[in-house]
Amino acid sequence: MAHANGEVTSMLTGKHLVFVGGDRRQLEVIAQITDNDASATLIGFSELGRSFSDTIFAEPSEAVFAQADALVLPVAGMEDDGRVDTSFAPQPVELKESHFQAMRPGTFVFTGIAHRVLAEWCERYSLRLVKLMELDDVAILNSIPTAEGAIAIAMQETDITLHGAKTVVLGFGRCGQTLAHKLHAMGAVVHVCASDPRDLARIHEQSLIPVPLKHIEHAVHDADIVFNTIPAMVLPAAVLRRMRRDAVIIDIASKPGGTDFRYAERRGIKAILTPSLPGIVAPRTAGRIIAASITRMLADDEPEFEEEELWT
Amino acid sequence: MAHANGEVTSMLTGKHLVFVGGDRRQLEVIAQITDNDASATLIGFSELGRSFSDTIFAEPSEAVFAQADALVLPVAGMEDDGRVDTSFAPQPVELKESHFQAMRPGTFVFTGIAHRVLAEWCERYSLRLVKLMELDDVAILNSIPTAEGAIAIAMQETDITLHGAKTVVLGFGRCGQTLAHKLHAMGAVVHVCASDPRDLARIHEQSLIPVPLKHIEHAVHDADIVFNTIPAMVLPAAVLRRMRRDAVIIDIASKPGGTDFRYAERRGIKAILTPSLPGIVAPRTAGRIIAASITRMLADDEPEFEEEELWT
Repeated sequence: MAHANGEVTSMLTGKHLVFVGGDRRQLEVIAQITDNDASATLIGFSELGRSFSDTIFAEPSEAVFAQADALVLPVAGMEDDGRVDTSFAPQPVELKESHFQAMRPGTFVFTGIAHRVLAEWCERYSLRLVKLMELDDVAILNSIPTAEGAIAIAMQETDITLHGAKTVVLGFGRCGQTLAHKLHAMGAVVHVCASDPRDLARIHEQSLIPVPLKHIEHAVHDADIVFNTIPAMVLPAAVLRRMRRDAVIIDIASKPGGTDFRYAERRGIKAILTPSLPGIVAPRTAGRIIAASITRMLADDEPEFEEEELWT
Repeated sequence: MAHANGEVTSMLTGKHLVFVGGDRRQLEVIAQITDNDASATLIGFSELGRSFSDTIFAEPSEAVFAQADALVLPVAGMEDDGRVDTSFAPQPVELKESHFQAMRPGTFVFTGIAHRVLAEWCERYSLRLVKLMELDDVAILNSIPTAEGAIAIAMQETDITLHGAKTVVLGFGRCGQTLAHKLHAMGAVVHVCASDPRDLARIHEQSLIPVPLKHIEHAVHDADIVFNTIPAMVLPAAVLRRMRRDAVIIDIASKPGGTDFRYAERRGIKAILTPSLPGIVAPRTAGRIIAASITRMLADDEPEFEEEELWT
């Protein structure tokens, strides 16, 4: 398979990364990073049944963090009590402020998302916190496995084909666009609800059917499948009661989604709030997306480095 | 949803159909046929939890068959001992030669496939046997749910996205074409193996990558996913041993498929022989395809009817 983010040609010779916890995605990140000639210390991988080149296993200690050129946390980041979840050890890893204090100022800290304490510690010790899931390129690339996962669920949960089905995509952001394109490519009839007139024009230009979000009931009333990508209550009871009872809702917006799930159940509409899809349907691709982004940033880390570009 | 086969505008007013057994597809056929104003007798549906307009339930008897304008069997047809499977009764229905003898000559007998005895009885009593799954239009329309089902399985069984994956489709018949088009639309890199130079030219014209079937190993050696549609041993051990161990094979050819499954397992390659996909992934769509075909033939059944056209 081609690298999701184009060929990674940058090398990381001489760089040392400390990985703390994670799931199957992180294994692909470690594989890619070490293939790029970096060395690594793995914390929270005591039950891992495989090895990587130039890699050691360790417990968290100030000495380990002091030698890091970058700390790589999982997509879910660190809880505010210092816990980092891992699929490869019996217990979560417990990080302390002293671990962050031990790192050299300017050291990269890669995470998917950042809760309050992680952001505070990074600021306090002048560490370069990169929230990968907030980077546009990573989010756009991640929208591909997200869309494929939503489509796979739609295929499973309906008794009709996507081909010829009336589908509605709520929202035309990074995920909404990708999902609408793929549904259209699969032969579905695709309505897209958005608010911005520029989005509605773009939806029309792409041979999709634009519907202003304020007229959402016109789009959904006879829909076979509704995909929501908007993290706000866009499918309240008043809209759901206009929908067919055999419609299926696939809500991929961040928790708690944008659907009144209680009322949907009462009305008999199947409504599914999907968990984070990339890590489930395509952990290897998701890991490669993260690895490519980390590699690019570490390899680009020249003295003339422009801070704003990285802190977005 | 639009009707799979275009809008069904033909009506079946005054026609009486006898349905024997079947699965969820048959329920959609019954719903569509009775919506088209036909009446129906249902045999082998004693545990069905719903009703249809102008429909009665019955046991098999000569009197029931004597009144039929058409007999509708399930996709799997009738076993040579007269058994017809049903999902909606505790026992299969037992048909006898006398039931066929009771039908008026020229009566339609619709089935998916026909085993020997069914074909013999229809010929003996001058019944018009229509093997729906052998009709080109039905087979092409059925290739859509088949392709969607194969794609859903590919999404589930791999840890990468289809987007960017190296895929190989073996065969460019009715299913192979549909599958190749949909994979291409989803952003996969699609190689297609075929033998006929005309097919290879068409594959190239459609921006897919043609590979002569005799050079199959050049296509599959670095593939992420191989889809087989050819009902012959095209993936023997000698080809499989050239493939990557983390490749996935999805074999949608009729049983026993075209893969040496024993060797695939030995090599650690995940190889999946899929059952009949349309009835599983999209029974409603599959039922509509069948209903549209039956409706068209029954409604077109004029005195000037040309026999050859129907017996294809």
